[in-house]
Amino acid sequence: MYTVNTTHDPTLKSWVQSANAPGAEFPIQNLPYCVFQQPSGPPSIGVGIGDQILDLRTCAGSGLLSDPFVQVASQPTLNALMGLSTGDQSQFRRLIQSLLTENASAKKDNIEPALVSQTDVKFQLPCLIGDYSDFYASIYHATNVGSMFRPDNPLLPNYKHIPIGYHGRASSIVVSGTPIHRPVGQLSPTEEGGNPSRAACQLLDYELEVGCFVGRGNDLGSTIPINEAEEHLFGLTLLNDWSARDIQKWEYQPLGPFLAKSFATTISPWIVTMEALAPFRCAEFTRPDGDPQPLDYLTSESNSNSGGVDLQLEVFLQTAAMQQQGMDPQMLTRGSFTSLYWTLAQMLTHHCSNGCNMRTGDMLGSGTVSGLARDSRGCLLELTWDGDQANAVPGTQRTPIELPTGEERKFLADGDEVIIKGFCESDSHRRIGFGICAGKILPAQEL
Amino acid sequence: MYTVNTTHDPTLKSWVQSANAPGAEFPIQNLPYCVFQQPSGPPSIGVGIGDQILDLRTCAGSGLLSDPFVQVASQPTLNALMGLSTGDQSQFRRLIQSLLTENASAKKDNIEPALVSQTDVKFQLPCLIGDYSDFYASIYHATNVGSMFRPDNPLLPNYKHIPIGYHGRASSIVVSGTPIHRPVGQLSPTEEGGNPSRAACQLLDYELEVGCFVGRGNDLGSTIPINEAEEHLFGLTLLNDWSARDIQKWEYQPLGPFLAKSFATTISPWIVTMEALAPFRCAEFTRPDGDPQPLDYLTSESNSNSGGVDLQLEVFLQTAAMQQQGMDPQMLTRGSFTSLYWTLAQMLTHHCSNGCNMRTGDMLGSGTVSGLARDSRGCLLELTWDGDQANAVPGTQRTPIELPTGEERKFLADGDEVIIKGFCESDSHRRIGFGICAGKILPAQEL
Repeated sequence: MYTVNTTHDPTLKSWVQSANAPGAEFPIQNLPYCVFQQPSGPPSIGVGIGDQILDLRTCAGSGLLSDPFVQVASQPTLNALMGLSTGDQSQFRRLIQSLLTENASAKKDNIEPALVSQTDVKFQLPCLIGDYSDFYASIYHATNVGSMFRPDNPLLPNYKHIPIGYHGRASSIVVSGTPIHRPVGQLSPTEEGGNPSRAACQLLDYELEVGCFVGRGNDLGSTIPINEAEEHLFGLTLLNDWSARDIQKWEYQPLGPFLAKSFATTISPWIVTMEALAPFRCAEFTRPDGDPQPLDYLTSESNSNSGGVDLQLEVFLQTAAMQQQGMDPQMLTRGSFTSLYWTLAQMLTHHCSNGCNMRTGDMLGSGTVSGLARDSRGCLLELTWDGDQANAVPGTQRTPIELPTGEERKFLADGDEVIIKGFCESDSHRRIGFGICAGKILPAQEL
Repeated sequence: MYTVNTTHDPTLKSWVQSANAPGAEFPIQNLPYCVFQQPSGPPSIGVGIGDQILDLRTCAGSGLLSDPFVQVASQPTLNALMGLSTGDQSQFRRLIQSLLTENASAKKDNIEPALVSQTDVKFQLPCLIGDYSDFYASIYHATNVGSMFRPDNPLLPNYKHIPIGYHGRASSIVVSGTPIHRPVGQLSPTEEGGNPSRAACQLLDYELEVGCFVGRGNDLGSTIPINEAEEHLFGLTLLNDWSARDIQKWEYQPLGPFLAKSFATTISPWIVTMEALAPFRCAEFTRPDGDPQPLDYLTSESNSNSGGVDLQLEVFLQTAAMQQQGMDPQMLTRGSFTSLYWTLAQMLTHHCSNGCNMRTGDMLGSGTVSGLARDSRGCLLELTWDGDQANAVPGTQRTPIELPTGEERKFLADGDEVIIKGFCESDSHRRIGFGICAGKILPAQEL
């Protein structure tokens, strides 16, 4: 478990002035990792500081890093760094912070050449993601969606015992900014016993999620006990689990969602480390009286007391017309990562509880982060659903979202851009941002 | 589409005598690929010939190969070879065949040092498998299993329109011979509203499947038209989709199987190429009158006429007692890959029909290969099921398999070894074998 330490001291400042601005996403207390490319350069790993990136490959080449970090910092992905012990990861964090701290300005002249403006680079996926599993950890989301797909049976009996999850598609994970073509797929027959059609998805949705990267993995046949799970979590990213609701409805029985999800999953370029998040850990979700206790293998004191992350999440929409008219994106969802019924540690421990092996760089999706309040619902399927109308999936009985252009949305239209933001803040620590996870919908391609 | 050509000539013989024995698995007409390691050596790619492996890394180093094959043959996995164009793959096949042909024995002295006995090596997974998707393409399997899990609704309305599939776990795919620990997991409450327990799986099963490796991939946002799908298929392997039925029953709603599958998937070490299989291609499954035609994107003349593979499959069981008493494994299942409702081309085309990208080395599982006859059922869940007893999953109302030791099996016991074999044969061509896909069940590890 990471504890709050000197690297979180809110009075620390950087000689990179943009990091010290009030509300800056990437102050010296954050130090999120990324992989980026400069024009005509190879991919490098970097650390976000203010509006800059500290190029770790350059640092390694300039003698600013010591072993074993020189080797790790010269890789084209973060996997080697992510596979270090938590002790080595902490040491690396302190080293980076010392390079960037205001009072280390004697070195500033050596370090400044390793800074690159964030606007001058192309971000890449931060690591090789071997396997991606997606969970379903918000009980509000599960209940809302269950009400639509199974009105008489919204929350299944296993939900309060198992962190429900399924295997996702790793190949189609893309980094923020990658445009997403509206998928084409099979849609339900319009009458019982009729034939389905093949058409462009009409009910295209986003899902507000958080992705969690595995640091050190485990061997096949071994487990990760709940008390050790936090040591295997490297950091978090923002995730949009794009969803084709009409394709999903027709295909998902009996083996679960497949092509409704696999056309694209977008993540933000930044991994905010669990260590940076230490000041924002909180107790797990408070289960209502009468809910069952999780089984022993999913229970530990530290998980109960500090298994949560007080991370605030926001989703914005900007249509093509809004962009043309210079209007700011409109907020659709304002949610909290504390609304999840299951903690990240529980998801990881459960995932490995059958002996399944995790590899460094594997990603766990939280599932759609939805809260109790209507404006905290994490996808359009829930947001535009009028809860007293059963079985609203086909999209007819929906309350559309009204936009300042006079446009309405029940689901996403071509040209819409969805932008997810996330941040942690408290009275006693510097605010920490996650950057953005954005993607614009392009028209369907030829069938 | 691969066509039958001179490399399939049944009169061809090799100077490796074991390849010419009647019924040999790996005659010179087969030439399956593998990755193997000799003691203290690095992984090499190789070709099976008789009871030997032709070490392609050694061939490359001995000047026996020309560009671009020198580079490809020196890799530690087959991915580079698999990503070649089908034309280059054919050329490589002809080159390998020419090295091994009887009448090329002038070169024999140069080539012989590149031969390694199959018994002297440790096999590895043949390639990096980025993503693994598992289908459900046997309508007999789907109907049988559906009858157990949903007695009133066995075959869902989408089945005859969609090659149903789901994302599998890539990290836990292991090569034949790797022992498999019985998984531990959550099992259903014994009474409604009760708590589940955590225990070792009691209903452990195998699933007879065929794995299909993707050769050239496609870009995200593009599709693979049905007429081009065969060009993206590299070859086939035998696959055992180990399944924990009790874990599956409790966890699988609503997102599909997860930990019931992800503890291990075993594949045979050999990839038999689609080119080697050309003489054994056959018409697709004959759909009963009244079944719907697949939608246009899944229909093509070549797929209908030659989308099938006339591949015979067998599953054997050897218990610890049988092994101690020197008894041969007992056959449990004798199936045919021609019983699948969907072709491999249809599975691939459907998978990419939403723009999902395939990467070279991705694997598609066929789903359990079950036929109509009882002895062609591809898993114990079906084999020991007495079809007129509804909802037989809990395992009480089952007709056990009797073994020559007097033992009985409803599901797998610790110490049991499951062995899958496969072969193609016809009057006009040499028999082609697939090697074996074997795994032994070890006891569950400490909870």
